[in-house]
Amino acid sequence: MPVVGMVGAGQLARMTQQAAIALGVRLRVMSPDGAQSADAVVPGVALGDHRSLPDLLAFGRTVDVVTFDHEHVPTEHLAALEQAGAAVRPGGHALLFAQDKSAMRRRLAELAAPVPRWRAVATPADVDALAEQTGWPVVLKAARGGYDGRGVWVCETRDDAKRLVTEIQAAGTELLAEERVDFTRELAAVVARSPYGQAAAYPVVETVQREGICREVIAPAPGLAEETALAAQRLALRLADELDVTGLLTVELFETRGGIVVNELAMRPHNSAHWTIDGARTSQFEQHLRAVLDLPLGSTAPLAPYTVMANLLGGRDADVYSRYTHVMARDPGAKVHFYGKEVRPGRKIGHVTVLGDDLADLLERARHAVDYLNADRYLKG
Amino acid sequence: MPVVGMVGAGQLARMTQQAAIALGVRLRVMSPDGAQSADAVVPGVALGDHRSLPDLLAFGRTVDVVTFDHEHVPTEHLAALEQAGAAVRPGGHALLFAQDKSAMRRRLAELAAPVPRWRAVATPADVDALAEQTGWPVVLKAARGGYDGRGVWVCETRDDAKRLVTEIQAAGTELLAEERVDFTRELAAVVARSPYGQAAAYPVVETVQREGICREVIAPAPGLAEETALAAQRLALRLADELDVTGLLTVELFETRGGIVVNELAMRPHNSAHWTIDGARTSQFEQHLRAVLDLPLGSTAPLAPYTVMANLLGGRDADVYSRYTHVMARDPGAKVHFYGKEVRPGRKIGHVTVLGDDLADLLERARHAVDYLNADRYLKG
Repeated sequence: MPVVGMVGAGQLARMTQQAAIALGVRLRVMSPDGAQSADAVVPGVALGDHRSLPDLLAFGRTVDVVTFDHEHVPTEHLAALEQAGAAVRPGGHALLFAQDKSAMRRRLAELAAPVPRWRAVATPADVDALAEQTGWPVVLKAARGGYDGRGVWVCETRDDAKRLVTEIQAAGTELLAEERVDFTRELAAVVARSPYGQAAAYPVVETVQREGICREVIAPAPGLAEETALAAQRLALRLADELDVTGLLTVELFETRGGIVVNELAMRPHNSAHWTIDGARTSQFEQHLRAVLDLPLGSTAPLAPYTVMANLLGGRDADVYSRYTHVMARDPGAKVHFYGKEVRPGRKIGHVTVLGDDLADLLERARHAVDYLNADRYLKG
Repeated sequence: MPVVGMVGAGQLARMTQQAAIALGVRLRVMSPDGAQSADAVVPGVALGDHRSLPDLLAFGRTVDVVTFDHEHVPTEHLAALEQAGAAVRPGGHALLFAQDKSAMRRRLAELAAPVPRWRAVATPADVDALAEQTGWPVVLKAARGGYDGRGVWVCETRDDAKRLVTEIQAAGTELLAEERVDFTRELAAVVARSPYGQAAAYPVVETVQREGICREVIAPAPGLAEETALAAQRLALRLADELDVTGLLTVELFETRGGIVVNELAMRPHNSAHWTIDGARTSQFEQHLRAVLDLPLGSTAPLAPYTVMANLLGGRDADVYSRYTHVMARDPGAKVHFYGKEVRPGRKIGHVTVLGDDLADLLERARHAVDYLNADRYLKG
């Protein structure tokens, strides 16, 4: 049986271990400090820094395939790893488009994929130039490194733009400017693709963000027009093919009155498909392993008419375990997933999944579970 | 979060790790040699011999709850562990009835549970005495230690009995004799019970054995009369309560024209409930962890009208991986579970689960998958 090496040892690596156990595939993770979410559940952790080429090369020699639980490995290191003979999936030429938003926007425009109007930012005047086409506000994004609402700034005015661009560039961050899309909701299309070229698409989901952080995912997106769902799946499959993605590709989308528009790309297991662990025949983690190993892909069929996943964010009271029993007792069908992470306010420490046919009931149950475990709304002061 | 310690590191411990990851519960296993099925997927394995009290005591001090992936820990060691303050679940007073078939038959008779006619065997004359009531053949069983058809012998005649009893007793094995039950099929009722006394029952399944080894499980047992299903669940719940079981209890049953008869008891995750990983809201492994931690139990609802699980036995050709892709490609909905064990003819090395509503189709798919992976029927000679 082959050995899959995952660079990074967060909750995505942790959940990948569950799938690896069933597949009989050995998972190794490369962890910066041995104290990450996956380190507690994966034996033989390799310590290493994902910014260090020697660490990556040493890790690559111990596994059959290298994959990732984040996008932060420097692009040039990916190329060097491949040069050294490692099977890197997704390859650096693909992963670049999940690492660098400017490169992604440029490539997607070439592919005639629907993207927001945007512009690379060298000076504040570039933001003004975009705003002349789109009107204010304009969104500034770090070209690399941001996620969960980090690396995103809204400029309401020309003065905002001048101040923010100067400040952020002084910190060495490369920027792009983007129109603020007038969307009705956010969707995500998750697909998998193997080196052989086989691909499989999950049902298109609705994702609900608050303060830039994903809070809920509803699978499938309720009331989504079939033609929109198909367009989103086709777009994700086409991008996976054109960008030569191996493994999972998540295309985060805005649904607008004029159709779908691509927001972000991710090439790894993604929060918008955590629902698949309990709600689909093949979890995204199993699917990612099958794809990077070039094994035939699994069925993406859902197990119930609706699955709702709610993220559990840490609250002010760290004693989650004492509230665990309440949630389990109240709702024997709810699946609580804990990531083994220290509780800190606002940090994703787990998620809850419920499935069934009554969407309103599922939303109520998922929200109650995470609100109760978070506890902030039940605490005084 | 608590730490659960499992004595034994076979496939049951391995699959328990999948459930522990989601629950956020830390699993430790005690392994005889660090080379067992679970050792490859559980960090921080404790080496130890389950027959050594010092090893058990040392292991017990590192965990919050001690539980088991087999029944082979000496009963007196269980008592000593409890005496030393360890939370042992199931407790030794309960586990005894899964360890010792004579003690089990005696206790079940006291509880007026339906059991085969039986008799402890001191001399061959005891077998003859039973046969006078039941007729030949009579089944001899090792009182302790047998499973998967080992420790079971059929005596067709008085001469057989004399020869077998003499031989087996000379090897130091304690025996009992039992009528050969004229059953129509075998069933299993799996329940969980927590120290608090909460209990939950899975649907009653049909188990199909060949050469004493479980080959297939169908959930729920097709065409089972509702009153029989309820009787089996009630019996299992009553036994869990009367025997003070904590964790899972599997009651293996014969279905006869006269009703159900208890064959064996197991107090740990059991082959007859592997279908729950993919086919029920709460897997038996999650349920066992919840029960031994005295957490509220999860829903036992099935996810489809039928789930079929087929055991994968090793064949003559050890290169299972090369056939893995065929099975995955042919049936994207089949869930193959590998235990990470060396392939040896006849050894359980994994299982396959399929779910849906067309039972004939499910049986065909499950059988094809395990036959193809085993490969013996496709090999010449």
